[in-house]
Amino acid sequence: MAIFAANQRASFMYRTHTCDELRIQDAGKTITLAGWVQTVRKFGAITFVDLRDRYGITQLLFGEELNTRLDEQPLGREFVLQVTGAVSERSNKNPQLPTGDIELIVVDFKILNKSAVPPFTITDETDGGDDLRMKYRYLDLRRNAVKKNLELRYAVNRSARNYLHENHFMDIETPFLIKSTPEGARDFVVPSRMNPGQFYALPQSPQTFKQLLMVSGYDRYYQIVKCFRDEDLRADRQPEFTQIDCEMSFVEQEDILNMFEGLVKRIFKDVKGIDYTEAVQRMSWEDAMWQYGNDKPDIRFGMQLTNLKYPAHTFPNRTDISNLINGANFGVFDNAETVIAIAVPGCSEYSRKQIDEITEWVKRPQIGMQGLVNIKVNTDGTYKSSVDKFYDETRLKAIADAVGAKAGDLILILAGAEERTRKAISELRLEMGKRLGMRKDDEFKLLWVLDFPLFEYDADENRWVARHHPFTSPKPSDIEVMINNEPRIANAAEYLKHPYANIKANAYDMVLNGNEIGGGSIRIFQRELQEKMFAALGMSDEEALHKFGFLLGAFEYGAPPHGGIAFGFDRLCSILGGSESIRDFIAFPKNNSGRDVMLDAPSTIDQKQFDELQIQLNLK
Amino acid sequence: MAIFAANQRASFMYRTHTCDELRIQDAGKTITLAGWVQTVRKFGAITFVDLRDRYGITQLLFGEELNTRLDEQPLGREFVLQVTGAVSERSNKNPQLPTGDIELIVVDFKILNKSAVPPFTITDETDGGDDLRMKYRYLDLRRNAVKKNLELRYAVNRSARNYLHENHFMDIETPFLIKSTPEGARDFVVPSRMNPGQFYALPQSPQTFKQLLMVSGYDRYYQIVKCFRDEDLRADRQPEFTQIDCEMSFVEQEDILNMFEGLVKRIFKDVKGIDYTEAVQRMSWEDAMWQYGNDKPDIRFGMQLTNLKYPAHTFPNRTDISNLINGANFGVFDNAETVIAIAVPGCSEYSRKQIDEITEWVKRPQIGMQGLVNIKVNTDGTYKSSVDKFYDETRLKAIADAVGAKAGDLILILAGAEERTRKAISELRLEMGKRLGMRKDDEFKLLWVLDFPLFEYDADENRWVARHHPFTSPKPSDIEVMINNEPRIANAAEYLKHPYANIKANAYDMVLNGNEIGGGSIRIFQRELQEKMFAALGMSDEEALHKFGFLLGAFEYGAPPHGGIAFGFDRLCSILGGSESIRDFIAFPKNNSGRDVMLDAPSTIDQKQFDELQIQLNLK
Repeated sequence: MAIFAANQRASFMYRTHTCDELRIQDAGKTITLAGWVQTVRKFGAITFVDLRDRYGITQLLFGEELNTRLDEQPLGREFVLQVTGAVSERSNKNPQLPTGDIELIVVDFKILNKSAVPPFTITDETDGGDDLRMKYRYLDLRRNAVKKNLELRYAVNRSARNYLHENHFMDIETPFLIKSTPEGARDFVVPSRMNPGQFYALPQSPQTFKQLLMVSGYDRYYQIVKCFRDEDLRADRQPEFTQIDCEMSFVEQEDILNMFEGLVKRIFKDVKGIDYTEAVQRMSWEDAMWQYGNDKPDIRFGMQLTNLKYPAHTFPNRTDISNLINGANFGVFDNAETVIAIAVPGCSEYSRKQIDEITEWVKRPQIGMQGLVNIKVNTDGTYKSSVDKFYDETRLKAIADAVGAKAGDLILILAGAEERTRKAISELRLEMGKRLGMRKDDEFKLLWVLDFPLFEYDADENRWVARHHPFTSPKPSDIEVMINNEPRIANAAEYLKHPYANIKANAYDMVLNGNEIGGGSIRIFQRELQEKMFAALGMSDEEALHKFGFLLGAFEYGAPPHGGIAFGFDRLCSILGGSESIRDFIAFPKNNSGRDVMLDAPSTIDQKQFDELQIQLNLK
Repeated sequence: MAIFAANQRASFMYRTHTCDELRIQDAGKTITLAGWVQTVRKFGAITFVDLRDRYGITQLLFGEELNTRLDEQPLGREFVLQVTGAVSERSNKNPQLPTGDIELIVVDFKILNKSAVPPFTITDETDGGDDLRMKYRYLDLRRNAVKKNLELRYAVNRSARNYLHENHFMDIETPFLIKSTPEGARDFVVPSRMNPGQFYALPQSPQTFKQLLMVSGYDRYYQIVKCFRDEDLRADRQPEFTQIDCEMSFVEQEDILNMFEGLVKRIFKDVKGIDYTEAVQRMSWEDAMWQYGNDKPDIRFGMQLTNLKYPAHTFPNRTDISNLINGANFGVFDNAETVIAIAVPGCSEYSRKQIDEITEWVKRPQIGMQGLVNIKVNTDGTYKSSVDKFYDETRLKAIADAVGAKAGDLILILAGAEERTRKAISELRLEMGKRLGMRKDDEFKLLWVLDFPLFEYDADENRWVARHHPFTSPKPSDIEVMINNEPRIANAAEYLKHPYANIKANAYDMVLNGNEIGGGSIRIFQRELQEKMFAALGMSDEEALHKFGFLLGAFEYGAPPHGGIAFGFDRLCSILGGSESIRDFIAFPKNNSGRDVMLDAPSTIDQKQFDELQIQLNLK
């Protein structure tokens, strides 16, 4: 890459070109390069060096006349080198390399800095383990595999900003030192020296600020911004993470869906060169749970669930087909709350051993099922099942037909308690999809999941919990239900009969290949409704005022209808990069204990700092 | 502004246009607007409303037929309103307004939200005081004056990103939860729940991370990023502030100066429409101190200092002209360490009262001088001075000539201790420049200040302090001086004779109209030199390793020569916006006690939070 404008060259003293810039047309020119020694190969009195910089690699040739100097100042891996020489056509061209037609015949060189032998090789497939790579992250970041990830991240950043700018969104910075309002996740807090005994909190998201900006009339806001949550870190969570955070005024759900599927399509185009021209599919939360067993279905492949049995209250409007399995004296099904099947295409000839292996897979503690029932839909029209004893061919055929299985399919059935079983069959579907190559890294399928319940029930406290967050509006048709009913649940056993149980949220999640990459909602913008929401969550009026008085106040002065979305930037990048791990897409990530092992942080602080902050430890 | 693409219109339900979009060509169209009621004017049965949104204002006309509905649902200031009507040519056009040729004849309207009467008027010149505006910042942000500032801020942000992108800089996010290494300013710290007894720190700048990225080979990095310093807040300092942070590899000072004056010129062009084609002036730190009395001179005007007397050690290479004032038995000058003059152009006819007022000004505690000597260089060729008693006309003329005063100038002279006097005359120069209209808001003058001393002397601890920061390299010619001498100061009284006292830094500040808007340096990239620097600052080897082991380690593995700069983004915006106050350019600023009065933060936290973090208060 030519990083210098022609008129700038003279002033850059360390190099005239980058390491992926020279071509056969440059032959004969005298140029200067600077970079790192990737490899040193000595052939008698001649030495070849691959010189690497951010942009690429150029081969250097040190001829006989430099032999003595090289002996006095030997080059090693990762040495920083400046060389001047003449560009020359190679005899032995390397078509893999953009600069592969030429080499630099070195006339003079200078070692700008030496390097100790790196603790692992700086190559795509490194010999460094995870801990070592994290400790020497500055070396790990030199590897092409990691550099590509950060370049992709920047490309996504740039693409998102361009799209949002063109659509009149304004980047407005919101504060990092805010107020602690623990609600949902735990806050990181920051003691205030100037206000002893008081603490700031780091934002879990700029949620209330972006809503205030809408109240202030800014109409379209965005920010690519760090957020903080002090949670026990599951694999692939980070205490600090980045969101593409957006909000718009005078919009309804349809407006938001259009605007932000546009954003993701633009990113596909700019970053991956993919024209995602098809309409983004939409699915209700209930359909997602019913057909896929979870709220972020991977729709790159089918293999939808067939609900053979389920508790009536969870899906009150679905047709009951439990007669297909009832009355066969098969206790496992008879005693199960839920029985769900998938038809795995083309696997009817799986061996006993293969099926045993899948059975073991569902019995793993992470999945937690007792066993697995299978029905083979043989290509010769017969059926073979692990429960032949209870079901004759006619019944097996009826089940297979209900499941939509075709000749050659293998039906897998799980039975047990509703929530666990649904989760397990959903995992099994993903696993089988993966094994059968139906989840391709280079295929991208977007999905909007809509119509979430507004509330979940908290049995411990016998109150409602906001499924999304407390600022999400109910569907327009449910606003009256919410306003006109008391949130208190008089009879815990019958909470499902409370009018709030059926309120749907004006919320939406964007799902990409089975991962939630973004989520948002139309917001409450009326003080009365917001107060009702806080009350539903068990907050007293005083508590609501103390925590969110500024927002309730703002709603008094002409708050417009508004809504927005936030994308998980780290996750989005990792999916686009075809990786499971978001850490690979963060320059300086923390480990699962929230530690930066390179810095050795967090760490102890000085007594002087404790004294100034007027706090002390209280270790258990 | 047309914020909707034509094919999007149908899906945006709340409005078809914005409030500054309609023109005479739209007459006859039926359209829908949404926004805030700016004013309501009733003329009999007809009502005019100015409807405001982010983009502009459109006049609405409610005719007689809507009179009853308006009586039932009266409109007030800041109500949120949706109206549908027909665009119509106005009889009484308003050329001040882009939409001034038309009005909207309202057919139907809906009050989307009401507003209480705002606590201050939402106008450019508001009646709201500072505290009230900060408490209701969401209303203050509606004022055009504030909105313009945030729009300017976004324009600077966008312009900087575009320039840096085009020059192959990559935006790479660095972490916010890092290690506390108190050095210079105080850190904000964050207790770690997962690592009890340990703390993260919030970054004062991404300094070490951007250097690591250079070690990793990223070559050109940038970030527009929040930084944090827990300092007692002088006026117009914020505990969190934003930097445009940049770093480059394989560069010398000249490369950085070229690249980043290009950045600022691009911002001038994009944001202010100014072609800053002239070369940016450069000045050594010593010249700045000598000629202007400070290290960030406002060079929009001259009025340079004349040093009539000064201690020899501060400027060893300057010509001594103290004979001009010596030997006149004028004790004030004879006893002063320093005597410095400026010639104020065209003010020789200042009255006694005017001069008394200036004398009072320099006696204010903020300036702290005992008095002021003046010499009037009269247009008739005579001289008149407050020290006529001691100096005859010949000597006055000689002084005036040395000062470069012309006929009609007023010479002002301060005398006293070196540091205070130099600071005072510098302030006086700025004050006189302001009074004489020589510091114009719409004139922009850039300046590079170069060749700073690398160290300052800390008398309390008898050691060196890094003037810039501990990562700044000495000038190439001074590296050997630093390596080959022990940093320890054996004789405190003679610290000026220590070889370190004269080492110059490879550092540069960018000054705009007398404000430091950016500063940076070529960095140390050799472990040995970096260790010497830490030792000079009084750090033991163990302490250096504990705090900066990761950086010293990184320098072992092929660190390239590199350097960079950071711009104070808030300050840059405020100068471009012609304001003294950075708070006006921050959406949600904190007050001088570090409080967000809108949020009422910082605040107390729950006992549960203390327990989880295993800390407690220790209030004095």
